[in-house]
Amino acid sequence: MQFSPAIASLIRALKILPGVGQKSAQRMAFQLLERQRDGATGLAEALAHAVAVVGRCDTCRTLTEGTRCHICSDDSRAASGLLCIVESPADVIAVEQTSQFNGQYFVLLGHLSPLDGIGPREIGLDLLEARFGAGEINEVILATNPTVEGDATAHYIGDLARKHGVNASRIAHGVPVGGELEYVDHTTLSHAFNGRKSF
Amino acid sequence: MQFSPAIASLIRALKILPGVGQKSAQRMAFQLLERQRDGATGLAEALAHAVAVVGRCDTCRTLTEGTRCHICSDDSRAASGLLCIVESPADVIAVEQTSQFNGQYFVLLGHLSPLDGIGPREIGLDLLEARFGAGEINEVILATNPTVEGDATAHYIGDLARKHGVNASRIAHGVPVGGELEYVDHTTLSHAFNGRKSF
Repeated sequence: MQFSPAIASLIRALKILPGVGQKSAQRMAFQLLERQRDGATGLAEALAHAVAVVGRCDTCRTLTEGTRCHICSDDSRAASGLLCIVESPADVIAVEQTSQFNGQYFVLLGHLSPLDGIGPREIGLDLLEARFGAGEINEVILATNPTVEGDATAHYIGDLARKHGVNASRIAHGVPVGGELEYVDHTTLSHAFNGRKSF
Repeated sequence: MQFSPAIASLIRALKILPGVGQKSAQRMAFQLLERQRDGATGLAEALAHAVAVVGRCDTCRTLTEGTRCHICSDDSRAASGLLCIVESPADVIAVEQTSQFNGQYFVLLGHLSPLDGIGPREIGLDLLEARFGAGEINEVILATNPTVEGDATAHYIGDLARKHGVNASRIAHGVPVGGELEYVDHTTLSHAFNGRKSF
């Protein structure tokens, strides 16, 4: 089937969205053009606007408008002396949703992966080291993903922190709340045993 | 969590896509802004362009650029005298992908639903009747969805066709190819028995 050129290029463009293949893109394109033209125009404008104005925070490297995000601009958070290291801006959102953490963030935008040419400089560790050096941080919480690369990155940053006299801690890995022991994989379960707390 | 205004409005705009909720919209927004800025710009342009140029075909009411779609412009298809009635432009694509049908289409953009105020005029049956009256159509194939409303719409159009001396047929309903009898619902199975063919 031959789509008309504008529809074909819309379907092609929609396929860059994560989790969207040919069928979903077709469905989206038809729904937008049939029933949601205002929404489609709004989406086009929101996309163009976001691409134009959203950049990186100079301090923590998360996505934001302007040069400094609202978390880094918050003095009470700076005063806490806590710095949470995450891999991506989406992880900042995830931690913020817990409402438990009232410190600042540093976003690596990836993890160490020497085989792919991603070294300390590529994930902004020079910037992080400068912040350690400035002496405003008391504790760094390593919240990189519990993968091989995430663990390696956490180790590397832990060493860096100790070198500057900053305490480093790693978030706990164990059985997820609401999960059933039976269905938890054995690596997670052995982490849960090793990380047990007196009760 | 407070997103920066441009990211928040992008997430809100992405949620109009079918099957996209808050979480997926967040994931899409971050992926576009972190790694696919060119793709995002391309998507914004493709959307704005499609909304601007895509309209309805004057003859069959499918989505197309210009006033006449490429199927209606094809003389060999017009010569076949076959007209397939479908509910939506996506159904045209589905039928075209079979490569079995070489006639023209008429897209209802819905189905009869008197309770919602959708009568014959709203689904373009005045336009369809004019085509029956023009005498260029020999057979009309009713390919509306096999739902209560789709069946009722098919009956209505079948009566209309007979009034103008045009043959009407309904696509077959039965066991899907590759399906297992055990898992087919009983309405479909009784359709399959009633519609049996000598073998």
